[in-house]
Amino acid sequence: MNKNKRKYISVIGGYPCSPEESLMAETVGRELAKQGAILICGGEGGVMEAACKGAQAEGGITIGILPGDSRRTANPYVMVPIVTGIGSARNIIVVKSAQAVIAIGGGYGTLSEISFALKNGIPVIGMNTWNFSRKGEPDNSLVLTDNPVDAVNLALELAEY
Amino acid sequence: MNKNKRKYISVIGGYPCSPEESLMAETVGRELAKQGAILICGGEGGVMEAACKGAQAEGGITIGILPGDSRRTANPYVMVPIVTGIGSARNIIVVKSAQAVIAIGGGYGTLSEISFALKNGIPVIGMNTWNFSRKGEPDNSLVLTDNPVDAVNLALELAEY
Amino acid sequence: MNKNKRKYISVIGGYPCSPEESLMAETVGRELAKQGAILICGGEGGVMEAACKGAQAEGGITIGILPGDSRRTANPYVMVPIVTGIGSARNIIVVKSAQAVIAIGGGYGTLSEISFALKNGIPVIGMNTWNFSRKGEPDNSLVLTDNPVDAVNLALELAEY
Amino acid sequence: MNKNKRKYISVIGGYPCSPEESLMAETVGRELAKQGAILICGGEGGVMEAACKGAQAEGGITIGILPGDSRRTANPYVMVPIVTGIGSARNIIVVKSAQAVIAIGGGYGTLSEISFALKNGIPVIGMNTWNFSRKGEPDNSLVLTDNPVDAVNLALELAEY
Repeated sequence: MNKNKRKYISVIGGYPCSPEESLMAETVGRELAKQGAILICGGEGGVMEAACKGAQAEGGITIGILPGDSRRTANPYVMVPIVTGIGSARNIIVVKSAQAVIAIGGGYGTLSEISFALKNGIPVIGMNTWNFSRKGEPDNSLVLTDNPVDAVNLALELAEY
Repeated sequence: MNKNKRKYISVIGGYPCSPEESLMAETVGRELAKQGAILICGGEGGVMEAACKGAQAEGGITIGILPGDSRRTANPYVMVPIVTGIGSARNIIVVKSAQAVIAIGGGYGTLSEISFALKNGIPVIGMNTWNFSRKGEPDNSLVLTDNPVDAVNLALELAEY
Repeated sequence: MNKNKRKYISVIGGYPCSPEESLMAETVGRELAKQGAILICGGEGGVMEAACKGAQAEGGITIGILPGDSRRTANPYVMVPIVTGIGSARNIIVVKSAQAVIAIGGGYGTLSEISFALKNGIPVIGMNTWNFSRKGEPDNSLVLTDNPVDAVNLALELAEY
Repeated sequence: MNKNKRKYISVIGGYPCSPEESLMAETVGRELAKQGAILICGGEGGVMEAACKGAQAEGGITIGILPGDSRRTANPYVMVPIVTGIGSARNIIVVKSAQAVIAIGGGYGTLSEISFALKNGIPVIGMNTWNFSRKGEPDNSLVLTDNPVDAVNLALELAEY
């Protein structure tokens, strides 16, 4: 694959997560690896682990940007643990390192990541996740889908430098 | 005032902001200072500047946690500029340093701060700001008000160690 | 005092520290407060606590930029705890927020802070602390003194915007 | 290679750097890749770029932990740019993500990284770089060598979890 066409996609979402979300995330990870994208995530469990598991099964590269001080906290499918030691401030790095973000489920941490992505003009594909309104006006910035393969295709299309 | 009763309240919100939001923020800042609270904010313009202006007028202490590398970027009503150089990751510090947060208007940066506060169990008083739903379920974590003095009283009541 | 003349000085150093260093730091804190400067530090024990204690005794403002997630870890003389949650990356904020730095004793954390200060062109007054050579050439960037009052006067003279 | 034996080594040093340092760094990068290690660095020019160039020539994985907000600032031999946006606070992540650090030349930024590594108990191999004394006592924590292949062998031997 042409190095210049390599894409960087982050997968964010709940930890823990539901079995349905886990399956979505694993399929997303698998498909990203099949298409040659590098998977970036927060390196922990739940959606992050499922996505890494899928990507690893297809020989993909998985990067886990960890909040704490030890690479031992990475899930077993992280190929390169990045040990930040900066706590949840690492959420911003997960987002900024991506050309597009796929959000699956998730809590307030995921909402913070979606916000940072939108603030930085990074496209977000949303699956079963948050929606929000500003002063009563719905915000329709998320690209919504329920299909993991569609999510990956959308992310790769929207991914720009 | 008893040192042990000193409260730390962050004011977050839009930059720029509407005249209505600016007035709200200034009144909030004034009232916080009157009640002896220390005002923490992101140190820039808009809602942050208006809040600092109000607090300074009442002799309050104002802390501005700046994203960039220079204290020159602080608004003129910041008494203590904290120069982080960590960009928007400083949003998390603005939130974590507070016992309660007052959100006035704001964009995606404000939404990220609200998310971080809720994730960390820090109460958020919302004025004319975001609302959000998770998987279709409305999230009612924000305490809503349109009255700046009420906002301050609520923040001080909810502020805990 | 003219607001525009307010100076921001960081005191860095060992935790724990020797009784001699503690005394130096307390005198430094006292003198900074007497001269109207705002004291910034890492908010923990040792040199940081002694400096805050001295400053508080003279009615000074003390800012503690904490590594962890709780303001409870601040020493009792910190007036405004800044809760960063970013671990030792907060060392950089301690340095960048100052117009001049006074280093008293200290270990590798202090050495990292001295390095960051010099990299950013912030003057460092050294008391009983590190010295270093690059490729065998001694680096004489630190201004050395054994006298705490001299240290404060030097810091205030060298402090620029 | 056994995944569990994969090692993470950071290369730090001057930007810009001398031709001699550039050659050292390139040989270090090459040798790290040959031995299956993943190369982590700050992602910029000078020593970082030379090390990545050497590693890429041998098909190694290169991670660049960037200070700014754009992956465009990565040198052309970085395979995975991590976009932190946290400025020089990213130095700490470069160090914490490694099991051992190789320092080649460098200025105050490199000295800060060496300090953080030693503070965190991460072994540092020094080539043509800083040395330092605490209160007049020389600190001999750095493992010194002039030979890039020796540097890599030492780093891999010392690399522990």
